[in-house]
Amino acid sequence: MNTASVSFTTSIAYELQQLEERLIQAVAPLGHSSVADHVRDIVRAGGKRLRPSLTFYTARIFNAPLEPTIAVAAGIEMLHTATLIHDDLVDNAQERRGVPTLNSAFPMGLVVLTGDMLFAAAAELVAEANHVAIVRDFAQTLGEICHGELIQAQTKHTLVPIEDYYKRIYGKTGSLFRAAAQAGAMLGTTDPESIQAMSNYGRLLGMAFQIIDDALDFSSDTQLLGKPAGHDLREGVITLPALLYHARQASLNGTFKRVVAGTATSDQVESTIEDIRSSGAVDEAIGIAMDFAQRARDSLNGVADSEARQQLLELTRFAITRDH
Amino acid sequence: MNTASVSFTTSIAYELQQLEERLIQAVAPLGHSSVADHVRDIVRAGGKRLRPSLTFYTARIFNAPLEPTIAVAAGIEMLHTATLIHDDLVDNAQERRGVPTLNSAFPMGLVVLTGDMLFAAAAELVAEANHVAIVRDFAQTLGEICHGELIQAQTKHTLVPIEDYYKRIYGKTGSLFRAAAQAGAMLGTTDPESIQAMSNYGRLLGMAFQIIDDALDFSSDTQLLGKPAGHDLREGVITLPALLYHARQASLNGTFKRVVAGTATSDQVESTIEDIRSSGAVDEAIGIAMDFAQRARDSLNGVADSEARQQLLELTRFAITRDH
Repeated sequence: MNTASVSFTTSIAYELQQLEERLIQAVAPLGHSSVADHVRDIVRAGGKRLRPSLTFYTARIFNAPLEPTIAVAAGIEMLHTATLIHDDLVDNAQERRGVPTLNSAFPMGLVVLTGDMLFAAAAELVAEANHVAIVRDFAQTLGEICHGELIQAQTKHTLVPIEDYYKRIYGKTGSLFRAAAQAGAMLGTTDPESIQAMSNYGRLLGMAFQIIDDALDFSSDTQLLGKPAGHDLREGVITLPALLYHARQASLNGTFKRVVAGTATSDQVESTIEDIRSSGAVDEAIGIAMDFAQRARDSLNGVADSEARQQLLELTRFAITRDH
Repeated sequence: MNTASVSFTTSIAYELQQLEERLIQAVAPLGHSSVADHVRDIVRAGGKRLRPSLTFYTARIFNAPLEPTIAVAAGIEMLHTATLIHDDLVDNAQERRGVPTLNSAFPMGLVVLTGDMLFAAAAELVAEANHVAIVRDFAQTLGEICHGELIQAQTKHTLVPIEDYYKRIYGKTGSLFRAAAQAGAMLGTTDPESIQAMSNYGRLLGMAFQIIDDALDFSSDTQLLGKPAGHDLREGVITLPALLYHARQASLNGTFKRVVAGTATSDQVESTIEDIRSSGAVDEAIGIAMDFAQRARDSLNGVADSEARQQLLELTRFAITRDH
């Protein structure tokens, strides 16, 4: 990780340390089996903690109390972890963040139930804040995430309209970013406009983040991401660069259609990935992500300048320029 | 179903009809795919609606308002449905309540995500009641259920102490019965003793219900339950009758140990099931269930007599004498 680009974590170091403790505490009911130890490794591997960081900064902007903020932030990160455990099972993924996935090491049934257990832990953490509207939004967010994943599973190998792609990535990513940014505001204010502004900020940032992720999948090499370029396309998950490439085709491209359908030869797959990379479609996708990020920043216009607001702008920059 | 034995449903016919509507509404976000239609069939098949009935009657005892009661009851039944979908996947079960299981008809990934979607729907329903303590208890209950299922998965083919069996069935069944009975009280009163009494009632009834279920598994024939006698034992799930049979053995029974371990021949399995049936262990288990049911009834001693209280006694009788 480029340390220069994660300066936004310094100012919330205490909150992030509390977060780590709460996350490990929350999986204590799993006991001390090999699966429980593996879950602790997954929780600790953790990634960038972008979602709880959003909650911490929006909470700070609206002077929310610390205790419930940490509980809600931990609940949101735990929900994220639970969905990743089930997603990796569904996708038969073998590794994430350098840690073997749970499904690579344990039987399916145990992975399903362990994921469910983390959903429960997430719900308990969020409920600790004693804030009914946040709990309701949390439940709705879980529904949106599952809906996004279901759409992804059901539209594999399908060229969908770009609007449908946006709906899918809203469910997959935008929804929880939105919930994370919104929850911090809700803990500190009841002003609907302020809450809506933070909600918009999180949603738009989440969209930008996911589009960058989908673009990186095409542009990066195997060593950097630990998977070959074009991994999504190989799996039948048709993301924005592929949809934009398709839109640029003057006439029907039979090879591309076969690659989408999953019936192409491996040579055809490699050449199509190279065609998408050199077509400008990846750059176009990155440009669209930048637009979403700009709209995210604009959502902060009504917020008085403060260190927390500056850090959110820094976090926004980090989320869309990461090269890892 | 023996219609004479379900008279407890008559007095809450309106609530139960509202419940059915809310359950179907709540799965609307699944849209109109073949998996969504199958989920509707599963939701409609529904079984006896014992858990929501508990909520309806305890709500009536404490004069709780109807709208939030229906939402919470629907959330509890939806949670039950979601856990069954994941359990059937984990157990590779093919049919439940006369409806093919979701996993018998759809790929694993779709079943995992659909179950998750129903967890979300359940949480949204419960959150609708705007009652923080109920939401917190709901999250905790989900954790207890998952914990019970995890213990069951991890102690298959193992002779556990009877205390561990009780812990397991509390998670599997007692917990949600407890939550269901308790929620109705919480919607109508803040008196801790009244809430505790309903909580005890639900928990003890749930224990009785599960022990009867485990005993029926040994005593009933294939036609009645749609599965062969001793199904649990065949699957390595060691329930109370088997544990009591084991406790009655004067000396080590090598065949029984092999049946538990799942290494016996099918002849040895059949003869062991017959031995358990004829040993009196099934009747002893039923006796223990009756004791739990009596303690459940005793929990209602502090409640002034009313039609709702009478119906809870009727429901208790039904739960432990069902022969289906």
